[in-house]
Amino acid sequence: MAYIQLPEGLPGIRGAMAFRPETARPLNDLVEVLLHAPNSLTPGERELIATYVSSENDCYYCQTIHGMIAAACLDGDESLVHKVKSDFLHADISDKMKALLVVAGKVQKGGKNVTSEDVARAREQGATDIEIHDTVLIAAAFCMFNRYVDGLGTTQPRDEEMYRQRGKWIARDGYAAVSKEYLPAATA
Amino acid sequence: MAYIQLPEGLPGIRGAMAFRPETARPLNDLVEVLLHAPNSLTPGERELIATYVSSENDCYYCQTIHGMIAAACLDGDESLVHKVKSDFLHADISDKMKALLVVAGKVQKGGKNVTSEDVARAREQGATDIEIHDTVLIAAAFCMFNRYVDGLGTTQPRDEEMYRQRGKWIARDGYAAVSKEYLPAATA
Repeated sequence: MAYIQLPEGLPGIRGAMAFRPETARPLNDLVEVLLHAPNSLTPGERELIATYVSSENDCYYCQTIHGMIAAACLDGDESLVHKVKSDFLHADISDKMKALLVVAGKVQKGGKNVTSEDVARAREQGATDIEIHDTVLIAAAFCMFNRYVDGLGTTQPRDEEMYRQRGKWIARDGYAAVSKEYLPAATA
Repeated sequence: MAYIQLPEGLPGIRGAMAFRPETARPLNDLVEVLLHAPNSLTPGERELIATYVSSENDCYYCQTIHGMIAAACLDGDESLVHKVKSDFLHADISDKMKALLVVAGKVQKGGKNVTSEDVARAREQGATDIEIHDTVLIAAAFCMFNRYVDGLGTTQPRDEEMYRQRGKWIARDGYAAVSKEYLPAATA
């Protein structure tokens, strides 16, 4: 039971989105741009950043759904997602991604932890200014989403298959499409 | 000097917004709804929540600009803003606001810190579900904004008068109006 009266049958952020469509709209627009819109970082790479930060923040709902979206973007490779969460420095991802995950991990603990050396290292591995910007904002945004989902005490079912199926859907169609569920009159 | 090449002459989040208008738009839409749109919590009350969380996150830019917006909403009472940041339980604000700031402070440390007792106490003081929801989301959103501003190493001038003047402008016209500065073609 969430701390406030949220619509039933919509776990995690979905109930909160349905409860308050006025804020759901910009929140959906933000993840659509950050995680799904065309970008030199692939959707799978961006979802891995979101998943890693959500895991560091210990948010079950966010790390599971975004982990499943990431896996769906990565040919179903859920083991890679788990390796990124537990030990990304030894995961089978690019050196650029490792450097960006270091930045994301610093942002998760607080923005002031990021150093010019962290950013220089990402740039040496080929990261562009936009990629560095988006990494910082994805990490920061999930510090918001994780707190939103856990701070309202939302229900977060332990049913991996539900997240897996939904992850495939979001990976294919994006957040704007999915948001119609709680934004019936959405223009997004 | 920020860690990436941001447009010059735009301190704090403003440079990051101008650098990436695609993400600036939903971020602006979010604060417009959360802090400025009609709500049973006054703009001053909502800005106090944003200021308090930004202060707890030690983000100079955000706590100063939102503190000045809050003051502008509260007949220029900057001493009340400082009292809320340092010792809100003894500030001249309502018991409902004190209970909501307790919730906001828990969210700042991590969503799981909020308890049903914290929420029940806010409700006893008259807080509605929407007010509790918005408090959680404002606190969560400023955990994003603070990390975004500090994680990019943005310039944050120590010029209180600049923040004071800008605070009056935003208090009067809102975020959608101000966003035209970095979103020339904004529809917001």
